[in-house]
Amino acid sequence: MARIVMKFGGTSVGDVDRIKNVAQRVKREVDAGNEVAVVVSAMSGTTNQLVGWTSAISRLHDAREYDVVVASGEQVTVGLLALALQDIGINARSWLGWQIPFRTDGIHGKARIDRIETQEMERRFAQGQVAVVAGFQGIGPDARITTLGRGGSDTSAVALAAALKADRCDIYTDVDGVYTTDPRIVSKARKIERITYEEMLELASQGAKVLQTRSVAMAMQHGVRVQVLSSFVDVPGTLVVDEDEIVEQQVVTGIAYSPDEAKITLVGVPDRPGVAGAIFGSLADAAVNVDMIVQNVSQDGQTTDLTFTVGKADLDRASHVLDKLRNDLAYAELVADSNVCKVSVVGVGMRSQPGIAKTMFQTLAEKSINIQVISTSEIKVSVLIGADYTELAVRALHTAFGLDADADS
Amino acid sequence: MARIVMKFGGTSVGDVDRIKNVAQRVKREVDAGNEVAVVVSAMSGTTNQLVGWTSAISRLHDAREYDVVVASGEQVTVGLLALALQDIGINARSWLGWQIPFRTDGIHGKARIDRIETQEMERRFAQGQVAVVAGFQGIGPDARITTLGRGGSDTSAVALAAALKADRCDIYTDVDGVYTTDPRIVSKARKIERITYEEMLELASQGAKVLQTRSVAMAMQHGVRVQVLSSFVDVPGTLVVDEDEIVEQQVVTGIAYSPDEAKITLVGVPDRPGVAGAIFGSLADAAVNVDMIVQNVSQDGQTTDLTFTVGKADLDRASHVLDKLRNDLAYAELVADSNVCKVSVVGVGMRSQPGIAKTMFQTLAEKSINIQVISTSEIKVSVLIGADYTELAVRALHTAFGLDADADS
Repeated sequence: MARIVMKFGGTSVGDVDRIKNVAQRVKREVDAGNEVAVVVSAMSGTTNQLVGWTSAISRLHDAREYDVVVASGEQVTVGLLALALQDIGINARSWLGWQIPFRTDGIHGKARIDRIETQEMERRFAQGQVAVVAGFQGIGPDARITTLGRGGSDTSAVALAAALKADRCDIYTDVDGVYTTDPRIVSKARKIERITYEEMLELASQGAKVLQTRSVAMAMQHGVRVQVLSSFVDVPGTLVVDEDEIVEQQVVTGIAYSPDEAKITLVGVPDRPGVAGAIFGSLADAAVNVDMIVQNVSQDGQTTDLTFTVGKADLDRASHVLDKLRNDLAYAELVADSNVCKVSVVGVGMRSQPGIAKTMFQTLAEKSINIQVISTSEIKVSVLIGADYTELAVRALHTAFGLDADADS
Repeated sequence: MARIVMKFGGTSVGDVDRIKNVAQRVKREVDAGNEVAVVVSAMSGTTNQLVGWTSAISRLHDAREYDVVVASGEQVTVGLLALALQDIGINARSWLGWQIPFRTDGIHGKARIDRIETQEMERRFAQGQVAVVAGFQGIGPDARITTLGRGGSDTSAVALAAALKADRCDIYTDVDGVYTTDPRIVSKARKIERITYEEMLELASQGAKVLQTRSVAMAMQHGVRVQVLSSFVDVPGTLVVDEDEIVEQQVVTGIAYSPDEAKITLVGVPDRPGVAGAIFGSLADAAVNVDMIVQNVSQDGQTTDLTFTVGKADLDRASHVLDKLRNDLAYAELVADSNVCKVSVVGVGMRSQPGIAKTMFQTLAEKSINIQVISTSEIKVSVLIGADYTELAVRALHTAFGLDADADS
């Protein structure tokens, strides 16, 4: 007997028939003698519609009221799934965020989970009851509904698995696992059987959409074994685990790309201490996240060029902040370019095997792809390139690092 | 300064523009210096969709899960209306049933309100905050969401008005008041300026759809002044008040009709004590509500015919119960007829003025309309007639009792 958290996203509960299908998957785990909590998202399309209404009503967006509106989507699915389970003879009840409770901080619209009180749920496990839990939502210190931010149901599931000390957290989605890269771009992309938390974290934050980044960080922190698998196809998925559970390590595990980046270059920035601090400090104050940074060698000992990337959605805000600093900083020009893409090569094997960056740069050079900015971490090399070259670059790198499906099968 | 509860039904909050329109109506009351609580229903169509999903998922219908699903509709509208109010500069916050809390009994799907804790809401009134309250929902002793039954938002509003000792409870709807009869049938129907609780209660329970019967009973019990008026047209509505607030009393205030009745006749029932008790006891045990009853004079001293009406929706269940009793009761035949309509004449003036029933029967006789069953109360006479005669009967009675608009204007 194991204790399992299952999570189903919006597509998996998109209509009545799919909810019944989910109930059957849950039944299988129950019939196998497992204790089961199921976390569900809103039916696909619902959250977008609710968010659309709040925007149409008010641009001010009191996040507390936004949370009240959007949290209603998960409320519908937990009730319906509980009914579907009961209908096939499974003892089940729904739990809303405030009922469990899922205690969060008070940051409405993107709350963080503080504590989950699972005593009553565990008592009911012992009676054979399945818990059907609303993802994405909790309750704040003000006793009002809080939501965790878009995609937050993954985080709900992993946090619940950690609180319940679950043996596994199965994330059911509309793809059947984590791939070496986006199969829509590279037809030879392979499904990864096992991946480390660190790699999954890099892939998720570098643009792979399978799991929400926060949920992976939380799984790593609490050692929750996460499995990504399909709601629709009955095949093994991808297991996200500790490094020591992976016997044969690939040097490069996957290639990610993110078209959501924009590049800003400040031309003719005075080359003196404190300037970078002023720039990035002001951006941080305006809640603009800066990712890659490169500073050119000063040509004249007086000024330099500073290039960095921000999220595309933050570009206007960043430009506005930097415009206001122009007099203080006395830079010559601000050049913004949103027609860029970040491509990343990820793998824990890089730690022990040098030369990955070199292979990456050579591969791109052979295809005449210009590298605009570079950043690296222990297990990742990222480059910023022109958006038009995205597919070309991803395909070439996928082949160069031996990831193509026909390369080893 | 007054304290006012405003209630807006599903059509009034049916889309984003209508919600903004409701916000403007609320603003007018706030600008007039009033303390305001607004009770809202789900957007029109939403509750039907949610109920439809629960039926499609499961015929078993755990009422606790049904409540979780359908209560989500009001959650959306309170959040959106609070945002719309804030957008035009009104301090407002939403309240869900469990937050206030609206404490109910544990009868899921048709809960009764036990107690409303309004202290925090009243504290915020003093700070100029408008309370936007989800109608139709509360919390049961099991700390789960309960709903009050279809149309329950009227009851929420009146109960809140009673708890807040509000000066007025304004029910905004898609008609501009209570009419002497259905204007779709009688073009000369007149809007009633003031109507007593008793009359409104009879009209509501006899088929007039403007207010939910329970809400009128509650208003009467707590002396809540209810006003029915239009969300869309800016004209005076109908005030539901105590009898002593109405100076010039009409003998007949309105004509109601209900096509939702079915007639059952048991032919050849043994004419001995205990038989009626057995029949109606069994129906009550099966939760079948019996309305009108008539027993023919025994022809032979041995058997009699028993005729009564039940709701059309209960007809199958009632027939089933009576079929099972057939051996015990030894009646000859069960004749069911759902092609009937109940027409009622209502007015508190009847108490002091005899002859209403006589006028009613004569009027129907002149039109050759056969009366199948009769029932009366202190302020009402109801007859059951063939459904085909409904419009003819209502129009003739409306004229006969001097209610036509051209009769006194």
